[in-house]
Amino acid sequence: MDARIDSPARRLMARLDALAAFTDDPPRLTRLCLSQAHRRAAAQFIAWANESGLDAYVDPVGNVRARYEGAAPGAPALMIGSHIDTVRDAGRYDGALGALAALSVVEGLAAAGRRLPVAVEVVAFGDEEGVRFPYTLTGSRGLAGVNEPEALEQRDASGVSMREALIAFGGDPDHLAAARAEGVVAFVELHIEQGPVLEAEGRPLGVVTAINGATRLSAVVTGTAGHAGASPMELRRDALAAAAEMILAIEARARHEPELVATVGRLDVEPGAVNVVPGRARFSIDLRAPLDERRRRAVADIAASLSAIAARRGVRLELTPTHEAPAYICHPRIVAGLESAVAAVGVGPRLLPSGAGHDTMVMGQRWPAGMLFVRCKDGVSHNPAESISQDDCALALAALTRFVEDFRPG
Amino acid sequence: MDARIDSPARRLMARLDALAAFTDDPPRLTRLCLSQAHRRAAAQFIAWANESGLDAYVDPVGNVRARYEGAAPGAPALMIGSHIDTVRDAGRYDGALGALAALSVVEGLAAAGRRLPVAVEVVAFGDEEGVRFPYTLTGSRGLAGVNEPEALEQRDASGVSMREALIAFGGDPDHLAAARAEGVVAFVELHIEQGPVLEAEGRPLGVVTAINGATRLSAVVTGTAGHAGASPMELRRDALAAAAEMILAIEARARHEPELVATVGRLDVEPGAVNVVPGRARFSIDLRAPLDERRRRAVADIAASLSAIAARRGVRLELTPTHEAPAYICHPRIVAGLESAVAAVGVGPRLLPSGAGHDTMVMGQRWPAGMLFVRCKDGVSHNPAESISQDDCALALAALTRFVEDFRPG
Repeated sequence: MDARIDSPARRLMARLDALAAFTDDPPRLTRLCLSQAHRRAAAQFIAWANESGLDAYVDPVGNVRARYEGAAPGAPALMIGSHIDTVRDAGRYDGALGALAALSVVEGLAAAGRRLPVAVEVVAFGDEEGVRFPYTLTGSRGLAGVNEPEALEQRDASGVSMREALIAFGGDPDHLAAARAEGVVAFVELHIEQGPVLEAEGRPLGVVTAINGATRLSAVVTGTAGHAGASPMELRRDALAAAAEMILAIEARARHEPELVATVGRLDVEPGAVNVVPGRARFSIDLRAPLDERRRRAVADIAASLSAIAARRGVRLELTPTHEAPAYICHPRIVAGLESAVAAVGVGPRLLPSGAGHDTMVMGQRWPAGMLFVRCKDGVSHNPAESISQDDCALALAALTRFVEDFRPG
Repeated sequence: MDARIDSPARRLMARLDALAAFTDDPPRLTRLCLSQAHRRAAAQFIAWANESGLDAYVDPVGNVRARYEGAAPGAPALMIGSHIDTVRDAGRYDGALGALAALSVVEGLAAAGRRLPVAVEVVAFGDEEGVRFPYTLTGSRGLAGVNEPEALEQRDASGVSMREALIAFGGDPDHLAAARAEGVVAFVELHIEQGPVLEAEGRPLGVVTAINGATRLSAVVTGTAGHAGASPMELRRDALAAAAEMILAIEARARHEPELVATVGRLDVEPGAVNVVPGRARFSIDLRAPLDERRRRAVADIAASLSAIAARRGVRLELTPTHEAPAYICHPRIVAGLESAVAAVGVGPRLLPSGAGHDTMVMGQRWPAGMLFVRCKDGVSHNPAESISQDDCALALAALTRFVEDFRPG
């Protein structure tokens, strides 16, 4: 491993460990949006930026931002970063890796006294996970200028409004419009893959082609509860058996088409007793695809299959959409730039869609945007077992640095 | 409808309504074993017996008992009855119908001043549902003399021991052996079907051929949790999808064989989030058949199918037996007697197994025993919607009376 690359990666890994100490629920890592732990993590982020001579600050909507000027003052800016909020009982890499890597890239430039044709703006978003408040991604929406005004009035489970939380955090809810970023020309986010593809193929890095669109549905199957001993099989209308057949139909449809994924993650059975034939089963469907057209077709196919199963089994099916997010096709110029940068650090580039949502899909509404993925262990994320290797971290940092150095505005 | 039959049935239905008012959790009917409500219901039962000139009492194990002498004092006794404890949020017929019908039969004999070749003993068991204490059927076990001594030491969810509850109820835990019944020659129980067979066939009454044996198993399927968006279908080891396939295999095996029933009534998914591929699924299996041999074969077949599914999907399966009860084949002489009695009241007899367990299976360990089933609405039991018609009640009472009148000892 090249010593020049290795040393910043080691520091980056150490900072990721240190940032994991900022939690609302020790010893578990839980750093919800605009919480105390988030505020202290943001302060630490700013302190690290200051150590490298960068001015950093919390913007009105709660992002931490820092700007490294280009060769010409006021040059158009390439923005890089990710988020520093987490889920409950989280891992230390999801989000924080990309935010701290962005800082690391700029520190490298500053240490070398190197000025680029573009300024580099570092951002650490604070509202990516959507755990505390239902309406989420307010940090990137703030930069893109697409926040709904109602976002501030939403409340968390304790009744605290986002407005109140933002004031306590050091944001400025009365001047949200001032968070809108100007002079930016592109956005790139480094993130752990959160899936097993790169590891399965033995590749450290991947370039994201699209952030999959998602449809979520809630299904309620109503049959007839009955005594498990006294209800003959032929007279049953078993809601769980019907749901089981539906789950397999959903799986079969997704398996039928590459890059389409469908998941039944929740299932509740009523009454849920050992000796009672289930009268009702409720389950969730989460369906994602890189192309909206393909996702919509799959949703229609699944709805038709499920209705047919319900009709054949004499149970009632209610299928209700609960969430709909269009896919974001990463900008071809960013994808090409990331491919070159990955190749330049000696890694065969792998193009893949992102199954998870990211701030990039919001940033992409205003600027050309893209993402770089790092292999993670066992595909695990949102879990303390989340892990990346220092070698992969070094490669990711090198590729991101290369992308930034080679980037030309317009 | 014959007026002689109609009037006792009307009184019986009114008593069933009245008994439903004895509950530990108004307005719902919840009368758990040896509870306050059970004690008050037993007192009411005794009061009704006394109104007809019958002596009635609580025996050491908590059964309410009354004896109507035969033509010769000390004649061998035919015992009839059922239970008066209930599940939580119960219906008013499960158990209480058979207990109060037994009282009604004896009242009819007493009113007519009629003495039979046998004495008739009425019993209202108090521990059939098994909701309060894990070891159950202690009432019938007490009569049969097969109670485990440890039964008294078991505790309910509040920490109250069965011994303490029995003392508060008016039983006598120090003289349980005195509950052992002597001089009994047979036992018959009238009960609602708790299933939909009689209703589906338009028959008011059924004669039980066997009380099905039951095997219960707990299944734990362990796959790998993963991000619902970032885990491609071909790399998943989805515990719920595997469980779904297992549920359908269980259903298919049971459908393959008449009178075999298999139920997955509980299913829990971990972590149980909309956007996470399930890493673990736990479910229950309840399997019943009139012949132990057939039940054991089905259990073995299902275990083999489930293992094959687990192996093919790369998930781990743990299958643990949690309960095992042998089938009870009703005594041929009792079955024949009930068939004749049912035919005598003008109903085509339908022979069917009981899927649910009953005190009869314990009584059958010591005496020839059998059961008479009454059609119930929609096959519903263990629910406030439990319902029977007064006409069916009248027919059941007539058939039970006829059986008792025609019964000859030995």
